Parts: sequence; structure tokens; C-alpha cells
Amino acid sequence: MNLKSDCLSCLLNQSLRVAKNLHLDEETSKKMMQVASASIGTYGEVSPPVAAADLYPKLASFTEGDDVYKELKALSTKEALRLLPSVENKVHTISDAIKAAVAGNVIDFATPNHFDLTTEFEKVFETAFSIDDESIFLSHLESAKSFMIIGDNVGEHVFDKLLLECIAKAFPNLKLYYAVRGRPIINDVTLLEAKELAMEKVATIVDSGVPTPGLDYGYASKEFMKLYN
Amino acid sequence: MNLKSDCLSCLLNQSLRVAKNLHLDEETSKKMMQVASASIGTYGEVSPPVAAADLYPKLASFTEGDDVYKELKALSTKEALRLLPSVENKVHTISDAIKAAVAGNVIDFATPNHFDLTTEFEKVFETAFSIDDESIFLSHLESAKSFMIIGDNVGEHVFDKLLLECIAKAFPNLKLYYAVRGRPIINDVTLLEAKELAMEKVATIVDSGVPTPGLDYGYASKEFMKLYN
Repeated sequence: MNLKSDCLSCLLNQSLRVAKNLHLDEETSKKMMQVASASIGTYGEVSPPVAAADLYPKLASFTEGDDVYKELKALSTKEALRLLPSVENKVHTISDAIKAAVAGNVIDFATPNHFDLTTEFEKVFETAFSIDDESIFLSHLESAKSFMIIGDNVGEHVFDKLLLECIAKAFPNLKLYYAVRGRPIINDVTLLEAKELAMEKVATIVDSGVPTPGLDYGYASKEFMKLYN
Repeated sequence: MNLKSDCLSCLLNQSLRVAKNLHLDEETSKKMMQVASASIGTYGEVSPPVAAADLYPKLASFTEGDDVYKELKALSTKEALRLLPSVENKVHTISDAIKAAVAGNVIDFATPNHFDLTTEFEKVFETAFSIDDESIFLSHLESAKSFMIIGDNVGEHVFDKLLLECIAKAFPNLKLYYAVRGRPIINDVTLLEAKELAMEKVATIVDSGVPTPGLDYGYASKEFMKLYN
């Protein structure tokens, strides 16, 4: 899907959040916003993730390193790890672990929505899914040889790992993979955060090569696509 | 004051509101947002009103006429006129009229804040000003030869007129002026809306020549500045 008009102002609002998050001085912040705005003005027939993949490295050029959300990613992981023990206590089945991973999905510091992980976890174990394909999912796992989770936001990956651990216990012969972004984009999980969490203890970490949020096939490495298909 | 980094995303958000308000098709809307974004990327050492004065004519180029808020201005006036009789019933003194003008000041469709005029008028007559310079204002009027209101948003001008009528009654020798913007900018009052309201019945309408929101002296006509000073 191509970028819509709404996406353009959303991207500039994201840039402002990045500037605030980086605690840039006003002069640098404004320069960054000017660069962002000029870039956004050129985005025609591209998808929002591809536009983001162009924009974020430009934003990152105003700070050291290549990751504008380095600090917030660390904070998300810390918050998720703080809650992990109490969540683990409630997770006895794959079904529970799926729910925990779903609750973890609210972690997204990069969006304007505030999230409350504790509340999410309180609700999720008592709520049934309105669309529940769990039995189909489990029957697929029965016959599958491999299973891959494509990581999304940092922090969520803590509960992705918990889910992978549960799946590993129930299906010991299943080969597990955890795919990450090819480079820092928004607050998405990359090789770095997956390794920091020792994700390799439960799954083979795969660098998708994709520099966009989500999974744009056009950017994925051949090695990744071979595994993915 | 120069444009801050926050202003840049605010201007692009304003552009999106304009696109929605004009009910542009998605293609035109996106083209407009690209033009807006590219322009915003060039705004360096200018004030927010000057940036707006550059931006709005560019936005207007995507619609017929030169006024992106033509419809909303008409709606603001209609809403203000609908409430006017009940407000007039409560206005017996200049003091009341000042309060009505203050309440009318919430009219601003161009900002993200919603407003409820009826509620504002209910509150304002029962609330004292926390800073009240009314007696100073009235004593200045006693000795003044002329008095000028610089109009702001369309809709507010209905209650500005009510205030001018009250002042005219109390100070019949005072020469009254009502200043308007030199051309459509956001939803500010221009010659057109002032004339539609027959503002000339109570005050001499003066075109400030200013194409920015507010009153940027640099843009004001000599004739206006002579009156203003």
C-alpha cells in the first residue's frame, strides 16, 4: 500500500518524537525537522515502511550511532524483564504463552499511544480471543518441521522468547527461528537486542536483512527468504 | 520569535486538517501534503506567522479561490450568529460585552481543540477575570479619540461587533476601527467577512494589509500603521 497523505504528517510527528527522545538542543532539533520535512516532501509512490526506512537513518545522522531509539529500546526491555517473572508464573501452556506474547504486543514507545503492560497482563489471561485460531495453529505445529517468529518491537521480544520456550518444550523436534531487522528502524528488534536477550538459546536468530519496519520481501536477503519460504 | 522544531510538525498537521476540510481526493491531498512538507523543510529563521503566510497560499492553490477555510468560516459565523440573540440578552454593560468577546475567543476551527460556545457563554458571565484591567481600559477610553480592535478568527468577529456597539453607545464621540487581515490566512477575518457582517455600521473597517496570522508590523500597510500608531 502506498503512503497516504495522513502518513506524511505522521512521519513528521514521529521525527519530532525522535528529536524529543534524543534530547537534541533546539537548533539541532529544528535542523533535523527541516531535513525530515524536506525528505517527506519527496515521498511519492512508496509504502509507509519504505518511507520510514529512508527517514530514520537521516534522523539518526543527528545523533551518535545509527539507532535513535537505543535508550527507549533498553527501557522497553528493562520494563518487560521486570514483569517477566510474574508473567512466567501464570504461563503453564502454549495457550498462556500466546496470550502473554499478545499482551507484550502493546509495547511500542514509538507510537503516541501510552501502554500499561501490567494492566495488559492482568486482562489478557482472563479474556478469550474473539477470533481464536489456536487449535489450527497447534495442529500446524504438530506437522511442521520448523517455526519462525518475525520479531517486531523491542520489549515484545522478551515475551516472544517465552512463547518460543513453551513451543520448544511441547515440540522438541521443531526447529525454531527468530527473525530480526537488518538494521535499526524505529524501535524494532535487531540482531543486537536479540543477542542481548540470548534469544539463540531457544531459536536460531536470523537477520532478515530488511531495513524497513515489518517484512518488505523486496529488501529481504536470499538466505532469509529461503528459510521463510 | 523564530519557528521552533515543534512548529514544523504542527504546520504539517495543519496542512492535513486543511486537506481533510477541503475534502480533497487522496491523490490531490497527498500532492498537497508533499508540497507543504517540502516548503516546511525550507523554513529556517522565520516566525510561525510568517511561515503560515507562506504555506497557506500554497495549500490554497489546490482548491478554487484563495481561501482554504471558506466553508468553515461560514460555519463559524453561522454558529456565532445563532448564539448572538441569547448573548445579547445577557449583555447590559461594556463589562458584559468584554466577557462575551472573551468567550467568543474560543472559536477556532483551525486548531485541534474542540470548542463549545454555549458552555463558554454560560461560564463566562459568572466568572471573574483573574487579571482584570477593565477599569484601566475604561479610563483609557474616556480620554481616547479612537479605538481599534484587531480581528482574529472568523466567528469571534460577531462578538467583537457586539463589544464595539456597546463601546459606541457609552462613548459616542470615539472613532472606532476594526482591522482585518490583508488576505485569507487560516481562518482569520478578512475584509470579506467583516463586510458580510456589516461591521462598517459600527466601525471603520481597515485592511491591515498583513497576510500573516496576528499583526506582523513588517507586512502592515503604511495607512494601517498610521492609524495603529
